[in-house]
Parts: sequence; structure tokens; C-alpha cells
Amino acid sequence: MSVHLQIEATRGAARAGKLITPHGEVETPVFMPVGTLASVKGVSQDLLEELGVEILLSNTYHLFLRPGVETVRRMGGLHRFMSWDRAILTDSGGFQVFSLTDLRKVTEEGVAFRSHLDGSSHFLSPEKAMEAQIGLGADIIMAFDECTEYPAELARARASTELTLRWAERCKNYFEEHKSEVPWARAESAEVRTAGRTNASAPTRAGEMRPPGTRQALFGIVQGGMDTELRRESAERTIDIGFPGYAIGGLSVGEPRELTRDIVLSTLEHLPSDQPRYLMGVGTPEEIAEYARSGVDMMDCVLPTRAARHGLLFTSEGKVSIKQARYAQDENALDPACDCRVCQRYSRAYLRHLYSSNELLAQVLNTVHNLHFYLATMRTVRAWIRAGHAPAASALQM
Amino acid sequence: MSVHLQIEATRGAARAGKLITPHGEVETPVFMPVGTLASVKGVSQDLLEELGVEILLSNTYHLFLRPGVETVRRMGGLHRFMSWDRAILTDSGGFQVFSLTDLRKVTEEGVAFRSHLDGSSHFLSPEKAMEAQIGLGADIIMAFDECTEYPAELARARASTELTLRWAERCKNYFEEHKSEVPWARAESAEVRTAGRTNASAPTRAGEMRPPGTRQALFGIVQGGMDTELRRESAERTIDIGFPGYAIGGLSVGEPRELTRDIVLSTLEHLPSDQPRYLMGVGTPEEIAEYARSGVDMMDCVLPTRAARHGLLFTSEGKVSIKQARYAQDENALDPACDCRVCQRYSRAYLRHLYSSNELLAQVLNTVHNLHFYLATMRTVRAWIRAGHAPAASALQM
Repeated sequence: MSVHLQIEATRGAARAGKLITPHGEVETPVFMPVGTLASVKGVSQDLLEELGVEILLSNTYHLFLRPGVETVRRMGGLHRFMSWDRAILTDSGGFQVFSLTDLRKVTEEGVAFRSHLDGSSHFLSPEKAMEAQIGLGADIIMAFDECTEYPAELARARASTELTLRWAERCKNYFEEHKSEVPWARAESAEVRTAGRTNASAPTRAGEMRPPGTRQALFGIVQGGMDTELRRESAERTIDIGFPGYAIGGLSVGEPRELTRDIVLSTLEHLPSDQPRYLMGVGTPEEIAEYARSGVDMMDCVLPTRAARHGLLFTSEGKVSIKQARYAQDENALDPACDCRVCQRYSRAYLRHLYSSNELLAQVLNTVHNLHFYLATMRTVRAWIRAGHAPAASALQM
Repeated sequence: MSVHLQIEATRGAARAGKLITPHGEVETPVFMPVGTLASVKGVSQDLLEELGVEILLSNTYHLFLRPGVETVRRMGGLHRFMSWDRAILTDSGGFQVFSLTDLRKVTEEGVAFRSHLDGSSHFLSPEKAMEAQIGLGADIIMAFDECTEYPAELARARASTELTLRWAERCKNYFEEHKSEVPWARAESAEVRTAGRTNASAPTRAGEMRPPGTRQALFGIVQGGMDTELRRESAERTIDIGFPGYAIGGLSVGEPRELTRDIVLSTLEHLPSDQPRYLMGVGTPEEIAEYARSGVDMMDCVLPTRAARHGLLFTSEGKVSIKQARYAQDENALDPACDCRVCQRYSRAYLRHLYSSNELLAQVLNTVHNLHFYLATMRTVRAWIRAGHAPAASALQM
């Protein structure tokens, strides 16, 4: 049995349940913090556990360059490398590579690109992206797609979508042949060095949370630019190829937020109701709540962590730019309604001082708060869904 | 009753006991981590508590510039500002100001200097340094001294030592007149916003740990350059002025380590045996252990925290430069003999990856480990002293 979604309650189009993965269960709808280089910047794995993070996203492109897939694979995969025994999802590298506008060349075979770090030449194809993601060993891996640029003519969007569909097929073929090569499939019976820590959230030995036969899952990605008809076709033909979960990609590429919303809502209608639906790279707290209420099960975004490092904090009273002088002697908690470690202990004045003085701790504390805020937002949505009505058989098959 | 040392065991010249402060007891000999700008770079106060830190050092010069003494004073003092309810010591700013070689001018009255941040003009004198440190409200504050440069002619060292002695007298006079102005003296009966956290190490309400009548203590500083006779005279005349504790200053200014050691050992002989002895700005793990065994009660140094941020880690097997390629696939803990959170959870390979990739978490984890190593070093010395013999009455008065 691969990764699957267990729907436990629905409310309108929304669903709450559990995503079952080889590394534990994940309450959905879920927001996945981004740990680009196998680390959520500034936040230790202990703290992520304490925050209630059940699944992290990590970036194949970045790990491909540093420390390299082979290093991670030899170390037993990402979970063991970063000492994180909960679920992980990796993207395919497609989005990052396509962001290197002047450094890449796309062909039918794949994408040749130069590293943003040192200009060195690399090549990613559907097969290479699968090989990399199997080596990293996340619980959920993503098809290698072409993220259509915005704006794009319809003909260009169609050609790009067709390429993504051909690549999806190649991804699936490679994955089916090689999925047994995931590092933790082999490590399951081996002795694994993990934490000797004693608190309840400490990771257990690798393998213990992976029932026999569970394995990595490959999700497909719907493209189609900003055309709802092309999106429908992309969804249907991706479903025809057949994946255990589907993502909506190609958004947050510069289009107006209203358009993002229209495309998301129209695409959701074409995705299977009994499988996980993942909206990539979105969004603000208001947006993730809205999309979760609209039937999205999984989301990720760098916004909470990146904004935190720039002193932009999300609170129940709106956004706070902590660098402002008005907070210099403000003894109040950042968000009086928040029960995170930061709001329980520190004043706005102290946070403002840390940020103004370029203290490392500013980035740590700001990130902890913003992540807590995003996770709490999703907890609220889940409670809202569960307060709706119990799932009817028809709701599961609608 | 001000700050005082309660000696509970001695072994040779070494003593173990408790430093009693308005913000709790401190096991001695103690190493004090440096929190320059009211933060130990990258490490939250929660983690400092968990590490067992009982006293922190913070720098008056840096706080004077950012966020300014008046801001901290209005916020109730440093403890409340940074939400740290354990003991704090501030230096006088003297050492930092004297490090600004080209930006300062010394007169009998004090030191005019320019900020290293923006070139703005400031003035510190014995009285100003006392006013600042009373406003910051640390448990232990330091006399404003002149740190004699190295090398220095004997005549220059004598003139500098005489200036420090005159300034020590002015510091004491100002302090005696104004010590009731410490912000927490007034805050003691007031409601204070502190943590609503539930774990055992959470800070209690400000005031609860401060028995009535406890107050800030001003320590004197022995100078005298690298001349043992001048050191003896500086010690005796500083003791004549009368302080509840004495520091050895003016070391770690570029002199050879052997010379540091000679000056420390010879100066210690002239300090009262029943009062705290504080060696400023020293040293490596081996050095702090040696000085503690020689009768020093308190030490501080930026070495563990600064080295950590440069990837230099102290272990039971010696120093490790974690950036080295040899650790890229090393699955072992950084220090197999260490029980800190970092060594319990992460591999050298992961720490090397974080450091090589400039990940924030590298600085956080490296600092946690190095601090743990320093604190564990002092725990070992304290156990060694207590395993010696019980204190005889004569030992306390030797």
C-alpha cells in the first residue's frame, strides 16, 4: 500500500482526514513548511516536532547541488540524513530549474541548466528527476513537469502541457521500475542511529513507523497555464496515466491572485475526490484557509519562513513589520492571541531589538512564530470541517 | 545582602560553591556565555535554560548603542527585556571602548568614542558607566576601568593602573549613591508579564526570586599590565576601596598564553579567599578548567559561541572543523561522548552540510554544542573539587 488519503469528515467541498505515509500519518488539510536544503532555516527538528509539523517539503534541485543526491542516498536517505522521522515530500526540481530563465535549455529529453551557485552544468530529465527523488527517499515525490511561464499564449501553454504529459508518463515508467531502490526500503531491517532522547516526540528507530510493504508515492502534476479548458484536459489525461495523488502546479508564477483562485477552483473539480490534492506554492494565511475549505488537502509555501527572515510576521490582528520603531518599547506579546513559545515569552520590543540588531535569534524566533501561525490556521480549518458533518458514503465517492 | 559566594568545598586552591544573586543561585566555578546584545547569538532563552546556563554576560557598550540603556530601563531592565529570570553580569563597556583604538580619546574624566556602527559620538566615564549598568539592571556590574594595551612600558602600565584605581573609587561612590535605582527594585512589587509556559524551567514572575533587600553588586577590576608587582599593588589597593567581588582584567589582549597564566596565578594570590574571583575574557576549554582548578570562580569568553559560528567545534576528542570534506559522509555524532541535543540527534555529515550550505541552523546547532561542551567542562571541574575534601574553616579563611 502506497501513500493514501483517509477522509474522515467533509464539509461542502472540503475534507479532513489523514494522509497515510511510510513515515507516519499527517492530519489534512495540511500546510507543509519548506526545508529547502534539508533544514527549515533556523529551526531545529526538535522545534519542528514541537510545533506539530507532520510533513516537510524539501527541494530536489537544491539538494541535487548540495550535498548531492548520492551523499544523501548513502546516508540512508533524507529522513536519516536530517534526522527527521516524520513524512517528507520532495518537489521534482522542475520549478527551480524553470526559474533559472537564462541558465536553462529545454528539449524533449529534459532540461540542461547551470547551477545558480557556481555555473556548473547539469541535466535533469524525467528519469533523472525520478532517480534523484528515489535516492533522496521522500515519502511523496513529484513528477518532473514544465512549469509554464506567465503570461503564455494558448498555443505555447498547450505545447508545454503536452510536454508535461509526455514527461509524466516517462516519470511513471521509471518510477515503477525503480521504486524498490528507495534507501529506507533497504535500511528498514538495519540498525539505524537515531536519537537517544527521552521526550515523547523523539524520533523512533527508522523502520518502526513503516509497515511492511509501504513505499514512496509518485504524484502527478496538472499544468495547463491559465486556461481552464486546458487545465481540465491536463487533469483528465494525468489521471489517465494514473497516480496516487495529484498536484496543481504552474501557479504563483506572477499571475493576479484572482486568476490563481479561478484556476485552482476550476481544476479541483476535475481531480478524484478520493485521492490527495496538493496545491503547490500557495499562499497567504487567508489563501491557504480558503483553498483548504475548497477541497485542497496539501499546500506548501516559502512565505511564512521567508517573510519571517525579513521581519514580516503574521498575527491574529494582521501583519506586523517588526522592524518598525513603533514597537521599540512595546511590552506586549507579538500576537496576544497566540500560544507559541515566542508570543508566550518575548515582547515586541525585544523582537524588534533582535531584528534591528541583525541578531540571529530574530530569524529563529520570527520563523517559529510564523510557522506556528500557519499550522494553527490549518488546525482551525480542520476543526471547522470536522464540526460540519460526518462523511456520507456519497461524499467519499462524489 | 548583596551578591556573595558560598563556598561549599575546596581542593587545593580551587573552590566549589554557590554564587548567591538576586536572580538565583549559580553553581561555581562557572562559565558565563556571552549574550552581547541581550541574546546569545542564535540560541533562545528556553534552550539556554535547558543547557543549564545560570548566569549570562551582556555587554554594556553594545546595549548602550542598541537598543539604548533608556529603552532597556523603561522595559524593566535586562532580565525582563530579554525574558531571562536567571542571573546576568554586565561588563562596564571599558574593554569594548578601548578596543576602538582609533575611535576613542581617554582623559581623566572618561573616554570619548565614536560608535563602530555609525560613527556617532559618545562619552563614557565611571559615573556614566555606572548609570548605564544600573539602568540595565544586571545582578553583577563591573567597574569602569582602563584596559592597558599590550605591550606597554612599565611607566605606562603604572599610569594606566593608577587611572583605573581613581576610576574605581568614582564608580563605587556613584554606585553607592544610586544603587537603589535599579529597575527591578521598583518592579519587584509590580505585576510583570512573563511566560505562561508550563515546563519546570520556565521563568517565574520577576520578583519571586529576589529576596527582600537583595541588590546589584559592583565588582572591582584588577589591572596592572603584565607586571606581577604592579598587579599585586592593583589588587591590594582595589581591595582597599572595597568591593563584594574582584575581577582580573587586562588579559587576553594579545600576550602569549604562558604570560596570561603567570599573571592570573600570581594575581589570584592577592585576592580575598572568601569573595568571588572573576577572570575576564578567558579562554579555551583547557584554560577554563585549569583556572577553575587554580581558584577562579567565574569566567566568560566569546570563544565557544564565536568559534561555533565559524564551524569550529570543541569535542572530547579535540577540535573539529566541521567544514572539512572528510565529514561529508560521516554518520557519527559530532562528539560520541557528548549528551547534548545536537550530538544525540545529528550526524557530522548533516552538520557539515548545514555549515557548507550557509544554513542558519548550522550556527544554532554549533553554538548549542559548544556551549554544552563548556558548561560540561565546568561541571566536571566542580565535581572534581567536590570529590576532594570538605571545606575546613581554615580553607575558607586561607
